[in-house]
Amino acid sequence: MDEIQRAPTSEELKNFEFIQVLNEDPRTKTANILGKLKFSSSEVSQDAILLLEKLHFGSQELPILSKERILQWIATDKNDIYHWYNGLLTKNEKWPDFKVTLIWPATEAHIRKYSSQPRYLIRETPHIYETIVKPYIESIPPSRIQWVYNILAKESEAERILLEVEEESTGFILLPDMKWDTVTLESLYLVAIVHRKDVRCIRDLNDTHLPLLKNLRRQILQFVPQKYPGVRSDELRLFVHYLPSYYHFHVHVTHLRNDTIAGGIAIAKAYLLDDIIENLERFTKDYYKRATLTYVLGENDPLFSQMNDIGARVTPDIL
Amino acid sequence: MDEIQRAPTSEELKNFEFIQVLNEDPRTKTANILGKLKFSSSEVSQDAILLLEKLHFGSQELPILSKERILQWIATDKNDIYHWYNGLLTKNEKWPDFKVTLIWPATEAHIRKYSSQPRYLIRETPHIYETIVKPYIESIPPSRIQWVYNILAKESEAERILLEVEEESTGFILLPDMKWDTVTLESLYLVAIVHRKDVRCIRDLNDTHLPLLKNLRRQILQFVPQKYPGVRSDELRLFVHYLPSYYHFHVHVTHLRNDTIAGGIAIAKAYLLDDIIENLERFTKDYYKRATLTYVLGENDPLFSQMNDIGARVTPDIL
Repeated sequence: MDEIQRAPTSEELKNFEFIQVLNEDPRTKTANILGKLKFSSSEVSQDAILLLEKLHFGSQELPILSKERILQWIATDKNDIYHWYNGLLTKNEKWPDFKVTLIWPATEAHIRKYSSQPRYLIRETPHIYETIVKPYIESIPPSRIQWVYNILAKESEAERILLEVEEESTGFILLPDMKWDTVTLESLYLVAIVHRKDVRCIRDLNDTHLPLLKNLRRQILQFVPQKYPGVRSDELRLFVHYLPSYYHFHVHVTHLRNDTIAGGIAIAKAYLLDDIIENLERFTKDYYKRATLTYVLGENDPLFSQMNDIGARVTPDIL
Repeated sequence: MDEIQRAPTSEELKNFEFIQVLNEDPRTKTANILGKLKFSSSEVSQDAILLLEKLHFGSQELPILSKERILQWIATDKNDIYHWYNGLLTKNEKWPDFKVTLIWPATEAHIRKYSSQPRYLIRETPHIYETIVKPYIESIPPSRIQWVYNILAKESEAERILLEVEEESTGFILLPDMKWDTVTLESLYLVAIVHRKDVRCIRDLNDTHLPLLKNLRRQILQFVPQKYPGVRSDELRLFVHYLPSYYHFHVHVTHLRNDTIAGGIAIAKAYLLDDIIENLERFTKDYYKRATLTYVLGENDPLFSQMNDIGARVTPDIL
């Protein structure tokens, strides 16, 4: 049998000669390593790459994890109801397999906080927007976004403002997002809030807003590299969310290396500012009025019940 | 000492009574579980939450991983230069600790691909596509995607095929992606590879491909919930990459809860199949010929040098 066809055995892999780590990601527990490998019967070693990934807990493993799987818990720290441990599957204490936070006793609030809610992919047609979502947006009390108006009026967070363009139709305020520690450049996260109050979300955009959108783009891409030397304009993602977390138009600005906001830059949530400008300018002036938009809705979301009833959840047939 | 102050011991934690999984994230290998816990000396059990996280590979662990740490490699599949294994740290084969992809022999191109590198946001106008990217695609030797043709001809991975639609213009093969362990439903990752060879990427799509795109959508959304009870059609993301990792049209199918592919479902990389259908059907039959597409390019990418020279990197001015 042609040697290169069969999979190297466990024994042969033990002789993998490590050269270097090519890349790794502590968030996903992955590592890519380069080395040399040869079949036992061969003289010739060749470059080999191992793409390693810790496996997630198995669904059948979790119920018996504590009782049967974990050999030993090593307590590392505690604070009030929080107790931290490393969990060992083998007797080798040098490299624990899990880390664990024990919250005990846990209250209902804790349980809610650490629970997921079912989520559903939704297709919002223009009709569904007009009949359900738009009335919902219009019913939100202005007090819900008072904090936005406070920022625009410089009554709060004024010292955090990085840039202000004081123009009614194309102006905005740029400041760090509260998710950012304002120190770690790789996780840079800013938000640009527009001054005008008549654009609540992407659905309100048409070609008359192109000056606003282009102004946001140009000014942000010029300003941020000046303010943060080491950050280039081609390292910045400018995007908008739909559904947004608040209904006053704003643009997110994140560093390309920022992976901490995985869901926030995902399709069915985020829309590149460049794509929005492109769609309105090159294709149709009312693109976002006519488009069906797909997004994820949680069961606990106020809109879910109506969306469910009207049949907005994704099905095999395109309606 | 007040009992609630000391950390429960390893023995006491063995008696943790599992109730349910509150939340989990296969991307970060975390899970939150709810249960009951009591001190040995006590009658009273109280709610306890365990926040679990697999630990990342240690920097000192990686160089000796293969030689000393892994007890056994279990081969799971192979295709050409790709070999997949599970790695065991304990003798318990039921729950492997790592999954591994071995690429061997690895070329310089592979090494570059799997190494970390500086990345840049690029705007690919139709002109840039025609003058740089399309010639590049046409210059790729067919042998680079021999492994795709092997799958379509059922010469490899045939036993992994979930669904085949044997029709030249609208047909495809659906199988698990090599990234998926085929066990953890929350990280479900399938790929649908079309039979026809004349669609290399999203740029080749126009309204004549709507039957293909709609067929993919309908069949996948019908089939997957039948094959994997517990997975609904409104929990599946169907999307395409640009730039794709290989230039033969294929659709990614992932579970909504699968965050393991953070970059893979990000804007400036992923395009929802529904949006593609929408753009070609509702807006312009040659949308993807006329659109400027934004994506991330690594410095080591073969295209980078030409993209850099032609001024494709994002700047404050829209060209």
